[in-house]
Amino acid sequence: RDSHITLAHGSGGKAMRDLIEDVFVGSFDNPALAALEDQAVVALSELASHGDRLAFTTDTFVVNPLFFPGGDIGTLAVAGTVNDLAVSGAKPLFLSCGIVMEEGLPVEALRRVVASMKRTAEQAGVYIVTGDTKVVERGAADKLFINTAGIGVVPEGISISARNARPGDAVIVSGYLGDHGTAILVARNELALETQIASDCQPLNGLVETMLRACPDLHCLRDATRGGVATVLNEFAQSSGVTIRVREAALPLRQEVKGACEILGLDPLYLANEGKLVAVVPAEAAQRVLAAMRAHPAGEHAAVIGEVTGEQAGVVVLQTVFGGERIIDMLVGEQLPRIC
Amino acid sequence: RDSHITLAHGSGGKAMRDLIEDVFVGSFDNPALAALEDQAVVALSELASHGDRLAFTTDTFVVNPLFFPGGDIGTLAVAGTVNDLAVSGAKPLFLSCGIVMEEGLPVEALRRVVASMKRTAEQAGVYIVTGDTKVVERGAADKLFINTAGIGVVPEGISISARNARPGDAVIVSGYLGDHGTAILVARNELALETQIASDCQPLNGLVETMLRACPDLHCLRDATRGGVATVLNEFAQSSGVTIRVREAALPLRQEVKGACEILGLDPLYLANEGKLVAVVPAEAAQRVLAAMRAHPAGEHAAVIGEVTGEQAGVVVLQTVFGGERIIDMLVGEQLPRIC
Ligand SMILES: Nc1ncnc2c1ncn2[C@@H]1O[C@H](COP(=O)(O)OP(=O)(O)OP(=O)(O)O)[C@@H](O)[C@H]1O
Ligand SMILES: Nc1ncnc2c1ncn2[C@@H]1O[C@H](COP(=O)(O)OP(=O)(O)OP(=O)(O)O)[C@@H](O)[C@H]1O
Ligand SMILES: [Mg+2]
Ligand SMILES: [Mg+2]
Ligand SMILES: [Mg+2]
Ligand SMILES: [Mg+2]
Ligand SMILES: [Mg+2]
Ligand SMILES: [Mg+2]
Repeated sequence: RDSHITLAHGSGGKAMRDLIEDVFVGSFDNPALAALEDQAVVALSELASHGDRLAFTTDTFVVNPLFFPGGDIGTLAVAGTVNDLAVSGAKPLFLSCGIVMEEGLPVEALRRVVASMKRTAEQAGVYIVTGDTKVVERGAADKLFINTAGIGVVPEGISISARNARPGDAVIVSGYLGDHGTAILVARNELALETQIASDCQPLNGLVETMLRACPDLHCLRDATRGGVATVLNEFAQSSGVTIRVREAALPLRQEVKGACEILGLDPLYLANEGKLVAVVPAEAAQRVLAAMRAHPAGEHAAVIGEVTGEQAGVVVLQTVFGGERIIDMLVGEQLPRIC
Repeated sequence: RDSHITLAHGSGGKAMRDLIEDVFVGSFDNPALAALEDQAVVALSELASHGDRLAFTTDTFVVNPLFFPGGDIGTLAVAGTVNDLAVSGAKPLFLSCGIVMEEGLPVEALRRVVASMKRTAEQAGVYIVTGDTKVVERGAADKLFINTAGIGVVPEGISISARNARPGDAVIVSGYLGDHGTAILVARNELALETQIASDCQPLNGLVETMLRACPDLHCLRDATRGGVATVLNEFAQSSGVTIRVREAALPLRQEVKGACEILGLDPLYLANEGKLVAVVPAEAAQRVLAAMRAHPAGEHAAVIGEVTGEQAGVVVLQTVFGGERIIDMLVGEQLPRIC
């Protein structure tokens, strides 16, 4: 057995087939994948038992380093795509796994990543049913990139969209902001911080289910990944043609993240999260949704952080702890590359 | 406007959003994508109008060089995933587009690739409805990688599988072998060949539709990509537990490819194709399917190359032009990396 990935593992021939059967089929372990046909096939009637619309999404993951406190590129690759399905209200069902490896990657690193994918898929209740494996020469990629695409089914009657925010609606976040971004910064050793902080990387479909039971009429929902909460709020404000007012004092922040941000001059509203969502909900449902979220492990530290007003289209305003006001734009420039 | 891709184009913020709207949404141009939600949503009833099963597949493309005679990485990325859907008999419907770019890539190169994706998607009748854009630092990836995932719907009654080959069946290829592999070799200037040869890169869903009209009971169907026709034949022989006998004299080969193979000591049965399929069909249907294929532009040079026997499980035998016999294995080792 090879200890490192070689170009033959991407050849389409015997070495690749053996690797796929050993590492991927062995771990992901489901009949749709095990058939090793060029595509996975699922009965539409099975899909229809979950709702009336198919949701389809994709993300590529290029995070550096591959392993970090709280997760690794495999955890991220499954949770990230599950979350982009979940925020439509869909039940996530099936994922694909497209891997690009750099020649020389230790097979052991691949195994660890695949084990994380498997574990996170189980946690989210999804199956990885199809995939692809490419190998590029040393120097043509940085160790390992993963693309996952996902399909899920939206239950009848659910209609969540960035365009649905209405004046009076409440704005909720599902917990502490910026944990993932801070964890990656620290893991890169780019700063002289002693902080021990774990990524929040996790599937959110269970939390969204809970929220929908409390209020089937959720207006907007998005996971706050690259660009952070500030970017999601701007997307909601723009797509809905409203103003969103946020209270700085209400933002749930860990002491360690606050500290890191102060030292580095970063704004936690722009830090990446990989297991946090922003919701806009009708005012009358806000406390009900909040209570439901807090009763779920992924929403323990959920908080109402602001509300929607009709003042001006496409604007996000922060009411600072000192009583002032500040416009919060989308992220301009790069904050931190290869965060996910 | 930036002339080159910067890390800010992968930040999740304003620069990325502007690039996506300008390059991807502008070109792919369909309402599901234009909504820019975290996922595309399609009515299951629309899918059900095409058949009873969903097909789902993915491929990542890392071809080097990005542009070559007959296509580019964009043509490949759409045709490749369309073909993995088509060989199940599915009507390909929707694709995703996950892009990884190296910092410094000329935006003009991206535009050309995206235009090819759009053109090929139109040709295949599919829409690109969701995507993702990542940028890595200079040196962390080689220019541009694309992942596409695809979904399609298999019409009722169609059941194609690598396990369906039966003794007596005929084996057909859809045209000249090895064009793509040879085109990439030549484009890389790694050999002192003057040969002008274009990749065969093309969507095959139209051809498959034609074949299914001629014979709804196609047994096996696969596009012969990495690993070539030899690898597909071995997959069929193994999955079906049969022997496949191929006549060397019957293999459709361009003079240029034959020449290149002789000079370089390559076997055209292992060369990659990106617009060719191998079919196993009931003997009684062989001439009907062949005639239908030849009447389609993607099957003009289709040929019966052999037949299935019950001699031994999992074996592929080549009857050489000199009257001898040779076992044809799966590709062992690497023939040519970064072919697709
Ligand atoms: N990383 C992976 N995870 C899960 N399954 C995989 C992975 N890589 C490949 N597979 C599975 O292995 C089988 C063979 O994949 P392969 O990519 O060779 O098929 P293909 O797409 O038809 O060929 P090509 O990629 O050359 O076009 C398929 O069933 C595929 O789903
Ligand atoms: N290369 C692309 N081709 C087509 N559409 C794209 C592409 N990149 C992004 N998009 C679309 O742009 C929108 C924003 O994508 P983005 O990746 O920022 O969302 P996300 O996945 O929720 O965030 P993240 O990637 O940070 O998790 C989505 O609607 C997505 O489908
Ligand atoms: Mg995402
Ligand atoms: Mg998202
Ligand atoms: Mg593949
Ligand atoms: Mg393929
Ligand atoms: Mg294939
Ligand atoms: Mg994305």
